[in-house]
Amino acid sequence: MIQSPYLLFLGDAPDMLAAKVAQGIQDWRPEMAVGQYRMEGCGADLGIQDMSIADAVAAGAQTLVIGVANRGGIISQAWKSVLIEALEAGMDIASGLHNLLRDEPDLVAAADATGQTLHDVRVPPITYPIANGKKRTGKRCLAVGTDCSVGKMYTALALDWEMKNQGKKSSFRATGQSGILITGDGVPLDAVIADFMAGSIEYLTPDNDPDHWDIIEGQGSLFHASYSGVTLALIHGGQPDALILCHEPTREHMRGLPGYQQPSLEELRDMSLALARVVNPGCEVVGISINTQHLSDADASAYLNEVEKQMGLPAVDPFRHGATRLAEALS
Amino acid sequence: MIQSPYLLFLGDAPDMLAAKVAQGIQDWRPEMAVGQYRMEGCGADLGIQDMSIADAVAAGAQTLVIGVANRGGIISQAWKSVLIEALEAGMDIASGLHNLLRDEPDLVAAADATGQTLHDVRVPPITYPIANGKKRTGKRCLAVGTDCSVGKMYTALALDWEMKNQGKKSSFRATGQSGILITGDGVPLDAVIADFMAGSIEYLTPDNDPDHWDIIEGQGSLFHASYSGVTLALIHGGQPDALILCHEPTREHMRGLPGYQQPSLEELRDMSLALARVVNPGCEVVGISINTQHLSDADASAYLNEVEKQMGLPAVDPFRHGATRLAEALS
Repeated sequence: MIQSPYLLFLGDAPDMLAAKVAQGIQDWRPEMAVGQYRMEGCGADLGIQDMSIADAVAAGAQTLVIGVANRGGIISQAWKSVLIEALEAGMDIASGLHNLLRDEPDLVAAADATGQTLHDVRVPPITYPIANGKKRTGKRCLAVGTDCSVGKMYTALALDWEMKNQGKKSSFRATGQSGILITGDGVPLDAVIADFMAGSIEYLTPDNDPDHWDIIEGQGSLFHASYSGVTLALIHGGQPDALILCHEPTREHMRGLPGYQQPSLEELRDMSLALARVVNPGCEVVGISINTQHLSDADASAYLNEVEKQMGLPAVDPFRHGATRLAEALS
Repeated sequence: MIQSPYLLFLGDAPDMLAAKVAQGIQDWRPEMAVGQYRMEGCGADLGIQDMSIADAVAAGAQTLVIGVANRGGIISQAWKSVLIEALEAGMDIASGLHNLLRDEPDLVAAADATGQTLHDVRVPPITYPIANGKKRTGKRCLAVGTDCSVGKMYTALALDWEMKNQGKKSSFRATGQSGILITGDGVPLDAVIADFMAGSIEYLTPDNDPDHWDIIEGQGSLFHASYSGVTLALIHGGQPDALILCHEPTREHMRGLPGYQQPSLEELRDMSLALARVVNPGCEVVGISINTQHLSDADASAYLNEVEKQMGLPAVDPFRHGATRLAEALS
């Protein structure tokens, strides 16, 4: 539905974490992006071609994708002139922000005047059912994290890729805007109305072949004061058979919450399992995914070995080293 | 904003649990209801005057309040002719259902034609902030349950009443449609968008006097597959200093989920405390509220004694026996 290729708009993102939507597209569907657009003061860089709107149109870009996920999901006034320039140059705009494109009168006016389309991928396309808690056929794996933005989506994408590589039946199930932009389908869970959260995940992961795995993208963290409710709805709606614990070892506090420390992997394991077993008594933790992007090769290997010994489970960085051992753990 | 007195509409509610909105108004603000309206086959009865629309208008009713909370919150076609009759007779309509009055063209047309008002109290009146997890002044008490509909709102209303009776500073904080209809203010939590759930509860329970208690209405249950995410957002947004465990001992399975057993009070205590202490390490369970409505006087007393011994905490039915001991536990 969204026309590719894309121009990835990084705006004034202060750092790469804020640009994780664009980064996800670049990492998993690099053929879909012709370049990046960065504003004055932008601290993020995907390492691809910087382009003006005119450059992007000349390179064939059909859609400007807002690749920034700032706190609260606001469309900044500073972005507006760029977005309007893009519409006037013949591009559509796609966004996963809470602040909808369709709620900005100047963008709507420019889209109307130019005949271009505003895509708000965050808006749930249907009314989801209330969860019924019934056991479904097929198997499900969910990534849960010590914090937000520790690599749960990457873990799921890498695991899905490796499952298919090993000839296993697997589907990546997107639950966030970047996952949806990457795969074209999914549930924008954090925009779903509270009562229907768990039901939306049941809807996303229906009955399937007995040997098929849904690899469900995680959201938030049970230990994150802002988003924990979303995480629990995902656990109870997803009814996972397998959990993968995700962790970023250099984080100094919970993302966006300076007063909060990350839990230990043991705390994450115990809390997640206890809650998952409410809906699936057979649920097990099968592996650990460590985001080692801020560690050297030697430090990453040492840390993974240490975690593997400490937890008695395969511990890998699926983005750095591949998800082979995680896929092997799903039987 | 909603004009009283009310006519409480029970529709075709199959049982009293389905009519808990009307029951709550009748129990806590009986002076606001002139009577009840029951349709053919209605299995609920508040024990107040049955009235036709004409009777209610003659008795001074200003607003028909939909007192039924059915699964999914649908406005049934069978209700429509009664609701339109009420509008035509000069009453407003107030509803807390998911299915909004304003989304029903025939009701909107009748309201427009008659000049009456449709109140959807479920619709969040503002955009809430994302939770910041910061410690607030004042104290907070939250009721958590082994299941949905076990008496969490009644516990909070009774406790707030008794706190004021004991001369303590206290505010009941409504988080659901009946609480909002009873008190005229609050957050319709299950209709809030996922990302803003915890923030809406921070907003509802702001900084206050050091000796002031917010008595927060609970929602759902950590052990209920459909609504657990809402409950966790309430725990993390509310940052409770004190938890009260709520239980209905005659329930045979989780409400609406035939395959699920209720957890034990110990399981509820341990899971709730572990999660509450993520945001408030000083949180304690201070008492237990048992809904003994289906037990005889003797059985209720015996059960409460047993629970009190088993758990080492005051165990009361605040609706049957008053909330004195729970209020004493909040210091």
